[in-house]
Amino acid sequence: MGESWVNSAAVLGSDLHLELGGPGSRRAALIRALREAVRTGRLAPGTKLPPYRSLAADLGIARNTVADAYAELVAEGWLSARQGSGTRVAQRAEPLRPAHSPAPRPPAARPVHNLLQGQPDAASFPRTAWLTSARRALTAAPNDAFGPGDPRGRPELRRALTDYLARARGVRTDPERIVICSGFAHALRLLFGGPASGGHPVLGGPLAVEEYGLEFHRSLLEAAAVRTVPLPVDERGACTDQLSALPNVRAALLTPAHQFPLGAPLHPDRRAAAINWARSTGSPVLEDDYDGEFRYDRQPVGSLQGLDPDHVVHLGSVSKSLSPALRLGWMVLPEHLVEPVLAAKGEREAWASATDQLTLADFIECGAYDRHVRSMRLRYRRRRDRLVDAVAASAPHIAVSGIAAGLHAVLELPAQDGEQDGERGEEAALRAARWQGLALDGLTAYRHPEATGPARHGLVVGYATPPEHAFGTALEALCRALPGRRG
Amino acid sequence: MGESWVNSAAVLGSDLHLELGGPGSRRAALIRALREAVRTGRLAPGTKLPPYRSLAADLGIARNTVADAYAELVAEGWLSARQGSGTRVAQRAEPLRPAHSPAPRPPAARPVHNLLQGQPDAASFPRTAWLTSARRALTAAPNDAFGPGDPRGRPELRRALTDYLARARGVRTDPERIVICSGFAHALRLLFGGPASGGHPVLGGPLAVEEYGLEFHRSLLEAAAVRTVPLPVDERGACTDQLSALPNVRAALLTPAHQFPLGAPLHPDRRAAAINWARSTGSPVLEDDYDGEFRYDRQPVGSLQGLDPDHVVHLGSVSKSLSPALRLGWMVLPEHLVEPVLAAKGEREAWASATDQLTLADFIECGAYDRHVRSMRLRYRRRRDRLVDAVAASAPHIAVSGIAAGLHAVLELPAQDGEQDGERGEEAALRAARWQGLALDGLTAYRHPEATGPARHGLVVGYATPPEHAFGTALEALCRALPGRRG
Repeated sequence: MGESWVNSAAVLGSDLHLELGGPGSRRAALIRALREAVRTGRLAPGTKLPPYRSLAADLGIARNTVADAYAELVAEGWLSARQGSGTRVAQRAEPLRPAHSPAPRPPAARPVHNLLQGQPDAASFPRTAWLTSARRALTAAPNDAFGPGDPRGRPELRRALTDYLARARGVRTDPERIVICSGFAHALRLLFGGPASGGHPVLGGPLAVEEYGLEFHRSLLEAAAVRTVPLPVDERGACTDQLSALPNVRAALLTPAHQFPLGAPLHPDRRAAAINWARSTGSPVLEDDYDGEFRYDRQPVGSLQGLDPDHVVHLGSVSKSLSPALRLGWMVLPEHLVEPVLAAKGEREAWASATDQLTLADFIECGAYDRHVRSMRLRYRRRRDRLVDAVAASAPHIAVSGIAAGLHAVLELPAQDGEQDGERGEEAALRAARWQGLALDGLTAYRHPEATGPARHGLVVGYATPPEHAFGTALEALCRALPGRRG
Repeated sequence: MGESWVNSAAVLGSDLHLELGGPGSRRAALIRALREAVRTGRLAPGTKLPPYRSLAADLGIARNTVADAYAELVAEGWLSARQGSGTRVAQRAEPLRPAHSPAPRPPAARPVHNLLQGQPDAASFPRTAWLTSARRALTAAPNDAFGPGDPRGRPELRRALTDYLARARGVRTDPERIVICSGFAHALRLLFGGPASGGHPVLGGPLAVEEYGLEFHRSLLEAAAVRTVPLPVDERGACTDQLSALPNVRAALLTPAHQFPLGAPLHPDRRAAAINWARSTGSPVLEDDYDGEFRYDRQPVGSLQGLDPDHVVHLGSVSKSLSPALRLGWMVLPEHLVEPVLAAKGEREAWASATDQLTLADFIECGAYDRHVRSMRLRYRRRRDRLVDAVAASAPHIAVSGIAAGLHAVLELPAQDGEQDGERGEEAALRAARWQGLALDGLTAYRHPEATGPARHGLVVGYATPPEHAFGTALEALCRALPGRRG
């Protein structure tokens, strides 16, 4: 590390990175370096430069040299100096983009109304209450909360969830059997995707999945080399009585509170069948409780997990109840799966933000989560009612599938002659909807490629996100897109 | 969904999950259900029960029935009622643990002093300043910040990082070429681990890695079926002039600012060699800038990325500068890798918390991050100085490897006759250290299994985490563990 370095290597002054190479005096070199940094935009307009003393000390040059350089650049117009405000990069026309930087891309064209399912109302995020909890939680947290952390997740949150899930979802667990993760996809990867540092996955496939469900989850499982086997769904939910007929299936993934996306709650007989199958085969049932708190026609049915904590993995998150931007979820595990999941997570797995975990724990404990969910339940229930009423008024031949629950509904298109007709009808409705400026999905996209049950056709309509002033317009547009009654 | 459900299924009152089945009146059933919930701990001591009116409405029973039930349970001691405070579950001896819950595990035995590398001082996390930024950032954020989000990460943070990295690390980029992730391991997975929904990985192996480095990263790559090929390291850093001799290597991972863990900065000639190799082969160089802001003997050398943004992927995070609990990192990408990385990330990949991203953006913009880093730089520099002085005083034959930088130092054990001696010496020193109550690593654990360069032996000592009052004691213990000078 000889002195030949000094002129050619980069030299950092304060937090400013300058290269003082080249001919001439240090003053000239500094002027050149600063001018170049401003010209190419590496120092953005408005950036405050370090005081003479700091920069001089850091560069090993005289303070007057720095002062002279600044003065020169102020005279040239690259910097501006204001009494009491120090020396800053002058505000001027956008600096030349660095050679390698392309022009910013224009924003993608957007539909007028977002009726895609799965998204809660972002405008309703309870910022003030969340910040109040954040302040309390981060102030009170022990120092180790900011250290490397326990792969189980913060104990404060696991305790708060234990109580909350017992009260609200009938989940029977304790803090030592909860593992915090960053959402449902993360949980699936932890269970099936193989551990962080090699070894055996926690669970193996094939995995029985409801024949209508989220394509993203099927892809994720496929990428983890897990085969999914479709299980038919009817008005009582998944046909869990058929589980024992599926060959070699080693786990089952269900949405018992509110079948996604068709909307039936899992009938008690089907719940019993699922538990019996799990007990007799030793294979776990995964309960995706994605919107379990949102039921409008009656009190929510308790979790499947409450029937048999030893055979059910209960998965939940704040993605629907609070925000998908928080990346916060939980896995309530049978005792024997805790250590394997922790091993899969590893010591350095990208688990959820500690600050969000601490904040959510407080948010739950102080009752703010209950209040928020109650408020959202009311809001979404009204949205669903308006949707149902609008469809009943303009297109009474079109049925709204499933129970009054959640953040979406399925509008089933009338039965046609033959499946091809049904698909074409759905495609036509989708085209009409998009023409009306609506973003939404058709039901076919949710169907498992190997499903054998009767195909169903319809539109999957999320109603949580449009702003209040626009929802009526969105509904009108949707109704215009619906096919008329066939003669 | 017939009426036979009502008595046997779970009925949720408010956010309370109760089963009102069985013989007798509704009042008796409610008393039984509440008593059981409290007895088994599903309702924890202190939990506030819903007001009579709410619970009655939700259960479809008379308000007086609820009032009577509460009164009975207060009399029995399960509940307590305080004027103005409502009815709560009584504080009493720890309720029976649910049948399936094992006794809590005792905490693992801990060493007295944590000298493991890689961890910043958790007690120094700037809670107040972070909360100030959180309040500002979350108050000002647009609604879409709480929606599904852009896999690139928040634009506020990408803009703040563009400016900060230019100033502090000489990184040349723009917001459209930064992708936010949840740390270095996440970044490696995004680059090599294959996309979320099948398809081609962004980069393929084999990957050249420095022959001393983090075992966790090698395991991660191995789990992604990426072969790592060791590159020798000497006092000028990685021997990048040997890259072209490595067969078929398709990318290289370096720690140019501060070789991890041996401590040499990458010499300008070696930097040039790396860039030349990248340009002539078209293979990218990955720059792991894990502690680039922490240099104590001179100004930090600018990033490798600044020499050639088209051929270097610059990876950084707040894991060392702020906290590993935040799970916040960034990838500065060559233009042509941006879309492939976004495709690998997918729309629903577990990216970093939006709240943390927004907060960090503000934290950087308002200067708090600079202030914090400066303060930590001073703190860690003093720690390093004390370590060096202590070793110089008690064991002057033991060299401290590498430059004055970062959050760790390597104490190289004196050269022995033959490699076996060196390993035994290191093992003996580790045993002695652990006997002294110290947690730390030996150098051998960091060596690539196929490394061919001369083996080095020593202790990897982190100095950031011990509290101020304990650091002197830790140093004394460390010095006692060091081998004496051989005759």
